[in-house]
Amino acid sequence: MAKKRAKRIGILTAGGDCPGLNAAIRGVAKAVRRRYNMDVIGIYDGFQGLIENRWRILDWEDLSGILTVGGTMLRTSRVKPHAYQLPGGETIDMTAQAYENYRSLGLDCLVILGGGGTQKNALRLVEAGCNVITLPKTIDNDIEGTDVCFGYDTAMAVGTEAVDRLHSTADSHKRVMVLELMGNKSGWLALGAGVAGGADVILIPEIPFDIEHVANSIRERDRQGKRFSIVAVAEGAAPAGGFTGDREFADAGEEHHVGTRVGRRLEALTGVEARVTILGYVQRGGSPTPADRLLATKLGTAAADLLADGEYNVMVASRGDGWKAIPLEEVSGKRRTVPLDHAWIRAARLIGTSFGDE
Amino acid sequence: MAKKRAKRIGILTAGGDCPGLNAAIRGVAKAVRRRYNMDVIGIYDGFQGLIENRWRILDWEDLSGILTVGGTMLRTSRVKPHAYQLPGGETIDMTAQAYENYRSLGLDCLVILGGGGTQKNALRLVEAGCNVITLPKTIDNDIEGTDVCFGYDTAMAVGTEAVDRLHSTADSHKRVMVLELMGNKSGWLALGAGVAGGADVILIPEIPFDIEHVANSIRERDRQGKRFSIVAVAEGAAPAGGFTGDREFADAGEEHHVGTRVGRRLEALTGVEARVTILGYVQRGGSPTPADRLLATKLGTAAADLLADGEYNVMVASRGDGWKAIPLEEVSGKRRTVPLDHAWIRAARLIGTSFGDE
Amino acid sequence: MAKKRAKRIGILTAGGDCPGLNAAIRGVAKAVRRRYNMDVIGIYDGFQGLIENRWRILDWEDLSGILTVGGTMLRTSRVKPHAYQLPGGETIDMTAQAYENYRSLGLDCLVILGGGGTQKNALRLVEAGCNVITLPKTIDNDIEGTDVCFGYDTAMAVGTEAVDRLHSTADSHKRVMVLELMGNKSGWLALGAGVAGGADVILIPEIPFDIEHVANSIRERDRQGKRFSIVAVAEGAAPAGGFTGDREFADAGEEHHVGTRVGRRLEALTGVEARVTILGYVQRGGSPTPADRLLATKLGTAAADLLADGEYNVMVASRGDGWKAIPLEEVSGKRRTVPLDHAWIRAARLIGTSFGDE
Amino acid sequence: MAKKRAKRIGILTAGGDCPGLNAAIRGVAKAVRRRYNMDVIGIYDGFQGLIENRWRILDWEDLSGILTVGGTMLRTSRVKPHAYQLPGGETIDMTAQAYENYRSLGLDCLVILGGGGTQKNALRLVEAGCNVITLPKTIDNDIEGTDVCFGYDTAMAVGTEAVDRLHSTADSHKRVMVLELMGNKSGWLALGAGVAGGADVILIPEIPFDIEHVANSIRERDRQGKRFSIVAVAEGAAPAGGFTGDREFADAGEEHHVGTRVGRRLEALTGVEARVTILGYVQRGGSPTPADRLLATKLGTAAADLLADGEYNVMVASRGDGWKAIPLEEVSGKRRTVPLDHAWIRAARLIGTSFGDE
Repeated sequence: MAKKRAKRIGILTAGGDCPGLNAAIRGVAKAVRRRYNMDVIGIYDGFQGLIENRWRILDWEDLSGILTVGGTMLRTSRVKPHAYQLPGGETIDMTAQAYENYRSLGLDCLVILGGGGTQKNALRLVEAGCNVITLPKTIDNDIEGTDVCFGYDTAMAVGTEAVDRLHSTADSHKRVMVLELMGNKSGWLALGAGVAGGADVILIPEIPFDIEHVANSIRERDRQGKRFSIVAVAEGAAPAGGFTGDREFADAGEEHHVGTRVGRRLEALTGVEARVTILGYVQRGGSPTPADRLLATKLGTAAADLLADGEYNVMVASRGDGWKAIPLEEVSGKRRTVPLDHAWIRAARLIGTSFGDE
Repeated sequence: MAKKRAKRIGILTAGGDCPGLNAAIRGVAKAVRRRYNMDVIGIYDGFQGLIENRWRILDWEDLSGILTVGGTMLRTSRVKPHAYQLPGGETIDMTAQAYENYRSLGLDCLVILGGGGTQKNALRLVEAGCNVITLPKTIDNDIEGTDVCFGYDTAMAVGTEAVDRLHSTADSHKRVMVLELMGNKSGWLALGAGVAGGADVILIPEIPFDIEHVANSIRERDRQGKRFSIVAVAEGAAPAGGFTGDREFADAGEEHHVGTRVGRRLEALTGVEARVTILGYVQRGGSPTPADRLLATKLGTAAADLLADGEYNVMVASRGDGWKAIPLEEVSGKRRTVPLDHAWIRAARLIGTSFGDE
Repeated sequence: MAKKRAKRIGILTAGGDCPGLNAAIRGVAKAVRRRYNMDVIGIYDGFQGLIENRWRILDWEDLSGILTVGGTMLRTSRVKPHAYQLPGGETIDMTAQAYENYRSLGLDCLVILGGGGTQKNALRLVEAGCNVITLPKTIDNDIEGTDVCFGYDTAMAVGTEAVDRLHSTADSHKRVMVLELMGNKSGWLALGAGVAGGADVILIPEIPFDIEHVANSIRERDRQGKRFSIVAVAEGAAPAGGFTGDREFADAGEEHHVGTRVGRRLEALTGVEARVTILGYVQRGGSPTPADRLLATKLGTAAADLLADGEYNVMVASRGDGWKAIPLEEVSGKRRTVPLDHAWIRAARLIGTSFGDE
Repeated sequence: MAKKRAKRIGILTAGGDCPGLNAAIRGVAKAVRRRYNMDVIGIYDGFQGLIENRWRILDWEDLSGILTVGGTMLRTSRVKPHAYQLPGGETIDMTAQAYENYRSLGLDCLVILGGGGTQKNALRLVEAGCNVITLPKTIDNDIEGTDVCFGYDTAMAVGTEAVDRLHSTADSHKRVMVLELMGNKSGWLALGAGVAGGADVILIPEIPFDIEHVANSIRERDRQGKRFSIVAVAEGAAPAGGFTGDREFADAGEEHHVGTRVGRRLEALTGVEARVTILGYVQRGGSPTPADRLLATKLGTAAADLLADGEYNVMVASRGDGWKAIPLEEVSGKRRTVPLDHAWIRAARLIGTSFGDE
């Protein structure tokens, strides 16, 4: 009887990078090599490398020492297979080319580590003929179908550390300290860092705010003799009527950071000096927290089991202590925003945190 | 119509301390004061203070700035109401005295923050007439009925940092590095820190080990050209036949640290130098991680809602994003050890980690 | 013979807060109380509290647990005795009032923890009749006469951590990462964090830069196949001709952050995407590093010895392992900027770091 | 005219590893390659690799990303050229072989990164005919002639973090917490971490202690209502009469950790429970602090300048902001222990820290 050919899989990371990507790559690749004897090909620069055919075989040595390292050893890009940008600026659909390279590499399946948008692009590759398994990574924590995404715990810890630092300096002066965190469409990061750091005000995209309510809560603290207030703002937070609904906000239209806008308005309304910090890309970097490493390792090795079973075209979701394979169709094109009755929101309101909506 | 008297609650922390206790105290007390207008009495030194009637009223100022602080502002002790130790060494049952003080303080309910043993003591107070709500804290993570206990994530992060540090120094020399972590009856801490840190061997109480298997996995790494191995050992890990079943282990009987015993045996069996670290109480201290602060705040404020509803004699358990009140009877006297099919164990085995059992 | 009255000293913290202030307060107060039996009065809110007579006696309990805490337990303000601002906005000279309160409190000496500007204000109080001893604190590290100032090592560590985080994320994409650090008149913070973090370009006020040189060094890295460049910019860095000398810079005049300006110009010149982080007040907060605690404790206790000896009107400067009392006249009104031949600059140039000047 | 041959240098790391070795390797190698166009050969495993001729050329890529990494990319060993151990256990002098390999590699100079003992071995190689430049690395901080050694600041920070963690947990219970730190012949590490962490007792080799004095200082704290005491012990600390002079210590002779011995005796003398932590190799690992990176980079690049000038057979010492080349003869065979009048000791005594000698 002919010996069965060993399976061969490809791995790529797509979209913004985040801590835990290397831990997940290690989990998938060590498990499929060691337990299932598969070959592993690392594809560089996300979908761009798949289209441009840039890759190399990952051997055991490549996987050593990467568990704790931030970023992604395979690099990443925001290129989409169906909208590949030519030097001239024009975009063309390269999905067929991506599939062609997948086939010529002899891959049995492509493991794709990506965020919400990547799930959609992964499904397009499935429709083009590829087998695909995805893993949910994003500091925004807003992928549908999974309890939590890797990268989130680390980014949230960076944000919390910033709130902690602002606390100690805010207490020495009399000030409003505004911290702008990432989170354009969902507020998990600002909510988590805000509650964990004990912010007095938390503004997230899911809860449109009224700047007067925010100012009131700062005045109220002032009356209680509190010398300072900490305001955690997601970059996607907005007033109920939009920024144009408030003349003052509209006038600050040149400034694109919501944190800066909020700081200026609060200063005007309360008379208390405001200071603004824009944390920026610092939130994406650094060694993953233990929780993120555990999550990435759990999901990465789970993907190995799915690869061995030939169970393709799913995302590996975290469910409590375990995990579950979810059809890509159920995940693609959706976003898991913060539910308004989430326990953290309830908890924060109970202890007096303002979300600017009352 | 007569105005209803405001409820009055007591809070105490019992057993070993851990990060997150202050965050939980803050969550309970801020919420019941602010939202439900209750009085909050802090009882010092755990059950000892309840018996000896040491307490004070917690005002708003006491709750400020404690979210990030390790330990417990109310201090703790290992005194049990039914086995209170007299100066002479004799123990007597002071449960009735504890109830008497509860009553004379006019408490409607006692909020008890404690570990597995504390749940049992809390149930005894219920039987004596107290209303009780408990919160699950322990770095061991082994309380029945809750997904996770606060204190665990922080202790696990301390353990993981130690594994990380040992990695960098182990790599420079040729060595076996043994790290003994807490966990007498359950291996959550060693398992979590071991997988998150990429330990090569993890020994936990739930999986009796064979030192020959451990030595083999180190020899195997040697053959592959790996210069070092990291062994994470829970203090309660033991060989399949017990320490007396192995003559060499028996001879090292004077030494009570399993880490030291394992290190000596591995050195003898493999010829590779072994170095042992006993992390000890460093695992209990320090500022809680963001995840522990979020958990403690969620459960603390949930207790406030239960207090308002008069739903007593339950433990507030974490369940996914939310929480659930569980009757103390269902929790008391039980221990949640690591299931042998837990995803972290499966993951670790897939990437080549040895548990010393094969 | 009449028993000599115990000396009584006052302590205040002035100017921007920084890590290590509490450690220094603890050092002074514990030593003078314990060894020299003096009374210690803590004056709130810097010179404002001295003028407005807000203070309280510091007892032993106040000094416990503050060693590791950021900010200042005495709070601070930017008020100057000779330019005290009235509610109407007018400023008046309150130096005489400050002296009056000093006298009515029965102080033998005032210990002032402050930065460069504070040394000047301290000298004014001396001229008004007060005895004064100052301690050099500032994250800018630019006080004349001392090797190093407390607060600097911690702020530099925060900056370095940010560079480290940017490294891991920059490596995953193709990008220029600009990090703006504090340092309006001196570049110690950007230089230290830049060299410690391995930044590719460091721009400081002491070395006027040419944006074309900066762009060239990024293009050079690009040619070598480096995918990213890290640019550390002090907020006071400026082009050789000033921002108005470059039309592009002039056009970005609305934007007050030099980091943002540099990022935009580099993007335009190199065609590589730039991302900007403004660390802001995060640099002032948090627990002091061990080095800062040691420095603050050394200088604080040294002040106690000077107080006992009645050696007043000096700043306690750090000199190698020891310290030295320097007359305030020699310190006041001066600034210690980074010497152009400093070993860190030499070191950075040798390994290829660009300062934008060649 | 014949073009001058480029110089070729070798680098090796010897003795125990410590944080900052990679930063120093990077400093030397980047500077000599980039500025002086020399070839750099990395020799593996310290003197063992020099004797056994194991090495490889370091190219630019090897030097990228190592600044922040603990340990040493060249690995290290405790092998000495004049006492090389044969498989049978016999030791022979391989100094001639070391020189032979140095010569056959065509090296102009050997850069050796090592501690106190390594300086002596380096001098032996000089006598055998090699050109040598050394850099002072050791977590013990006890090399003669330099202000400070790289590795120390990081190890001290790890020790301080442990003291901080013990503080928060000690405060919750009533306990003596003993922390044993490295430092066999000198107490810099225990002194630095002890003062920075606010330990109540610090025991170092330079100051023989009397356990009764230590017990008294703990009883004194007890009388003042302090619930806990932190004792930082260097592994080389000893009672004035030696351990045999005290019957109780003598009886604990089996236990080799001074920390454990001290803990047991204090428990017996004071009646307060003691808990012991042995930090062990955790002190050697992890990413170097910014201060250590700056120091290692300064000294590494200074070595490059010396190499270019052909100034050999010196150690590059740190002196204030700068550095100085010191003849190996002046350094070899000496140890810089803590002076008894060091400002940190004076400071600690002033605020009430006991050194067990009074």
